[in-house]
Amino acid sequence: MSTNSDQKEVLEVNERFYKALGRRDIKLMDTVWVKDSRSGCVHPGWTMLQGWQAIRQSWENTFDPEDQLDIKLMNVNVEIKDNVAWVTCIQELIYIKRDPVVMNISQSTNIFERSESGWLMVLHHASPIPITHFEITETQLQ
Amino acid sequence: MSTNSDQKEVLEVNERFYKALGRRDIKLMDTVWVKDSRSGCVHPGWTMLQGWQAIRQSWENTFDPEDQLDIKLMNVNVEIKDNVAWVTCIQELIYIKRDPVVMNISQSTNIFERSESGWLMVLHHASPIPITHFEITETQLQ
Repeated sequence: MSTNSDQKEVLEVNERFYKALGRRDIKLMDTVWVKDSRSGCVHPGWTMLQGWQAIRQSWENTFDPEDQLDIKLMNVNVEIKDNVAWVTCIQELIYIKRDPVVMNISQSTNIFERSESGWLMVLHHASPIPITHFEITETQLQ
Repeated sequence: MSTNSDQKEVLEVNERFYKALGRRDIKLMDTVWVKDSRSGCVHPGWTMLQGWQAIRQSWENTFDPEDQLDIKLMNVNVEIKDNVAWVTCIQELIYIKRDPVVMNISQSTNIFERSESGWLMVLHHASPIPITHFEITETQLQ
């Protein structure tokens, strides 16, 4: 049986993942994941990276502290069964430091496992929603 | 604890899903899914459909018995924890009856729950891999 407390904890780790993504904070990202070969990550438009080492390397390759993001989550839904949870949401990523500002919208599925140290992400699958993938100028944002 | 038998059963339902998709067989698709509001389905490039009714309607809208598909699965991986399983795979869909023949390649995450009547799909998330999404002529297939 899942409890309201489980739901809250799963959502907290889900939000921590997006905070780490937005701030390009690899150390915070380290606290989110299951760190073994079962971990999987699908960046929008890519095939899945298998295993924590490959996933962490992909963050290291792309995280530039100067390239901060504003992230908004929509349609957030949590399902929990036994020691597994999955969160689905639409993630709106705005690269606020780029000129022109870039916005990417993706549909995400995030799977978490309950461990001794709390809930940890074991799979992140983000897929582009092309119809709403567009560039906007900073002027349009004001 | 998951067993080899669990793995085999999960893979069997996963293959049944793709058989139903390829044959445009809604009755076979009915045997695959959890049929409540928790079910979710992301068709490539779309946001998630929530609930079995919306998902079944989407198959009804798109299934044309004349539009058979050849489907090949690659990089199939199964993870099982308690009564939840998730299969990740690359799905290659070839619309063999179209002229020119169309091929779509997607990365998929499929989540299953163990029920009294066996493992059932509760989430299907397929996302396009644009770099390998292309049209080929029937001549090129020969």
